[in-house]
Amino acid sequence: MLPDPETHTIVPGPTSVDDLRELIESDAVNDAALVLDRMSEDERSIAVTGLPTEAAADLIEHLVEEQAAEILEQLAPNVAALILEELTSDVRADLIAELATDSASQILDVMSPEEAEETKELSRYDPESAGGLMVTELLAFESSTTVQGVFDDLTTNSDLYRDIDVQYSFVVENDRLVGVLPMRDLFLAKRSTPLREMMIKDPIAVRDDTDMDTLEDVFDNHHFLGIPVVNPAGELVGVVQRTAMEHALAAHDRSDYLKSQGIIGGEEIRSLPVAERARRRLSWLSVNILLNIVAASVIAMFQDTLSSVIALAVFLPIISDMSGCSGNQAVAVSMRELSLGLIRPSELLRVWGKEISVGTINGICLGLLVGMAAFLWKGDPMLGFVVGSALCLNTMVAVSIGGMVPLLMKRFGFDPAIASGPILTTITDMFGFFLVLSMASVLLV
Amino acid sequence: MLPDPETHTIVPGPTSVDDLRELIESDAVNDAALVLDRMSEDERSIAVTGLPTEAAADLIEHLVEEQAAEILEQLAPNVAALILEELTSDVRADLIAELATDSASQILDVMSPEEAEETKELSRYDPESAGGLMVTELLAFESSTTVQGVFDDLTTNSDLYRDIDVQYSFVVENDRLVGVLPMRDLFLAKRSTPLREMMIKDPIAVRDDTDMDTLEDVFDNHHFLGIPVVNPAGELVGVVQRTAMEHALAAHDRSDYLKSQGIIGGEEIRSLPVAERARRRLSWLSVNILLNIVAASVIAMFQDTLSSVIALAVFLPIISDMSGCSGNQAVAVSMRELSLGLIRPSELLRVWGKEISVGTINGICLGLLVGMAAFLWKGDPMLGFVVGSALCLNTMVAVSIGGMVPLLMKRFGFDPAIASGPILTTITDMFGFFLVLSMASVLLV
Repeated sequence: MLPDPETHTIVPGPTSVDDLRELIESDAVNDAALVLDRMSEDERSIAVTGLPTEAAADLIEHLVEEQAAEILEQLAPNVAALILEELTSDVRADLIAELATDSASQILDVMSPEEAEETKELSRYDPESAGGLMVTELLAFESSTTVQGVFDDLTTNSDLYRDIDVQYSFVVENDRLVGVLPMRDLFLAKRSTPLREMMIKDPIAVRDDTDMDTLEDVFDNHHFLGIPVVNPAGELVGVVQRTAMEHALAAHDRSDYLKSQGIIGGEEIRSLPVAERARRRLSWLSVNILLNIVAASVIAMFQDTLSSVIALAVFLPIISDMSGCSGNQAVAVSMRELSLGLIRPSELLRVWGKEISVGTINGICLGLLVGMAAFLWKGDPMLGFVVGSALCLNTMVAVSIGGMVPLLMKRFGFDPAIASGPILTTITDMFGFFLVLSMASVLLV
Repeated sequence: MLPDPETHTIVPGPTSVDDLRELIESDAVNDAALVLDRMSEDERSIAVTGLPTEAAADLIEHLVEEQAAEILEQLAPNVAALILEELTSDVRADLIAELATDSASQILDVMSPEEAEETKELSRYDPESAGGLMVTELLAFESSTTVQGVFDDLTTNSDLYRDIDVQYSFVVENDRLVGVLPMRDLFLAKRSTPLREMMIKDPIAVRDDTDMDTLEDVFDNHHFLGIPVVNPAGELVGVVQRTAMEHALAAHDRSDYLKSQGIIGGEEIRSLPVAERARRRLSWLSVNILLNIVAASVIAMFQDTLSSVIALAVFLPIISDMSGCSGNQAVAVSMRELSLGLIRPSELLRVWGKEISVGTINGICLGLLVGMAAFLWKGDPMLGFVVGSALCLNTMVAVSIGGMVPLLMKRFGFDPAIASGPILTTITDMFGFFLVLSMASVLLV
């Protein structure tokens, strides 16, 4: 049994390498990662260097990729290489890809030539492709091997295979994948049977350049825990585990959330240097402030209207905020339906139809609410009408744009997570300000 | 090999049950789910009833839970029961929990008594606990069983075990979990060895009420693909697969994203009825509009100031929007660090320290930008100073609140995903409007 969860909750404080090792070896690697996060840069590399290689690798694997890369860059290349060699091929390749070019090549230089070559090859794959997600650690046998031959190999190399998932083994002929073999079938087979006679022929496999969406479809449509990956020549090059794909999908979604909130790149941890964090956030904010100024310039064009009906100034931020809220609901649902595969980027009309019906109902309700508030405050029914109907109309505009923009972004190759919000709010701000102020200039002045 | 991805992209249109079945049987279940999504309520239940039970179950499993439950409620109870019996225990229990009470009991009534009892028990677990995530389909043997006995059982019941992951089998004594056995060890063992002599004793296990965060820690700290679940009496009741936990975590994160954008409940699909979607979205919008009116009332208190410096009206929405942007960046990073376990809810001071430094830099940059724009527009350096310094100060307030509110929400048991945004924008709006207008009333009027 596990210890009580409470005992896992440590309060980070000054810690020696020994404490860190103890945490890792008592299976509290996440706590160790937290302790490391709170150290200074120098302390981190001293601590990681002082750990046994296996513990250091375990720890590195539990860090956010960016932080892991930062630490590896500060280590002596041979120490970093030893740690990397303990990791699975996909994690190793991802980290090498994350490193600065010169650090990466220094570390690859001290790795064994084959491992360096393999790592370099793997790190060239798009991290969100089958090649980028696969591990090369797998069991493969020639089709002429007998069941007894497999057993012998398993016995001889059991140490080597300790960390490999052996739900399936793969059957090859001259490196080309020709079959797959659920390991449990071996229990029931005669020892002299060659694998070619008992394997599942023409197994489901994916090309190494298959993208994550397609891969997700394949895993959705089959109950496999792993899918073999072949290169264009049909040679078996690795296997994607279902957990690796689930993990990558979750990371992708989380990064979409961060991007939608203005964290460019989809990742920030607070132990990064202040200047770096400020710079990244500012790159997003400065685009937004320019868009904001553009939108607000609509107000500037109606200064005379505003001077005569100063109460309107109270309602401008409300219209801007509420249209943003309504529009962002529609953005979120579109993002979700895109990721679930429930809409295609081309189905603009369907989305618009579904949004405008909701937007009309909600626009009327919100418009009535704000219009009533304006009327009660100033006793002017026309002020209530102008403000209320402007919010009503702008809600309908906001849900339409909010629903459709993610589809358009995706269709034209932009990142919907990062671009949808600013586009939405700029358009709805401009339109909302224009609506209320132009109506006011006709009806209230 | 898989067919070309393009052939998977069908355009939904009028479809017969046969077409639907063909899609499911040719491993395009996601496409089938999309086709079903586009049908009317009545068409859906006719289509699902017309499918072979296994195909219907496959399809139901690929739907959003809410939609699956809606369809099951419309089916004849015996048809629904047959479909549910094809699903794994955890999916079945989740769906039963999602159904309206009377539909659920009608369906349970026609299931076999044992299966109904088990499903009822499972559906009582919190879906985000070990009990809610586990499956009861597993291999368990008494500790006195020999390797030969296991082989015999596997051979006899191979049909029954077809859909079970058999990476491990579990060893029990009077239902109590006493050991675990990697299946591959069976290859290498003598047939007469009893399991108790070769099993791994005192295996890692979790209690059925273990929450998802703790479960995630356990999976992070070990490389297991599955973890056995025991009840308070130490009896083996199920196994949580790593994929199930990854899946639930991803769903949780996605639902957090939707909640943060104002989709109450964390889920909406556009095939739900318009009135229902409008009602849900409106429940969030109406809270926000009240908060907005409260915040804007600050502007109302400064109408005289506004009348004399009408240009200020242009900058109020900019200050409101930009403070929201800066604050939401901090909210997103806090949400992410909370979910990664990189901060504890009690570490307010650390978060504030990290945020205020970034907020000061960004506040100065944004303030300078807006101040300069105001100065260039009106040629009034004091207007620039008032607007710029108000935005600068309010940015610092926004990141502080944005960073800390999710921690406070979590600490006091509220859902940080749904509450953080409105709290943030209400406070920063009020403070921002007050800052710029009170400074203006002193320096500009």
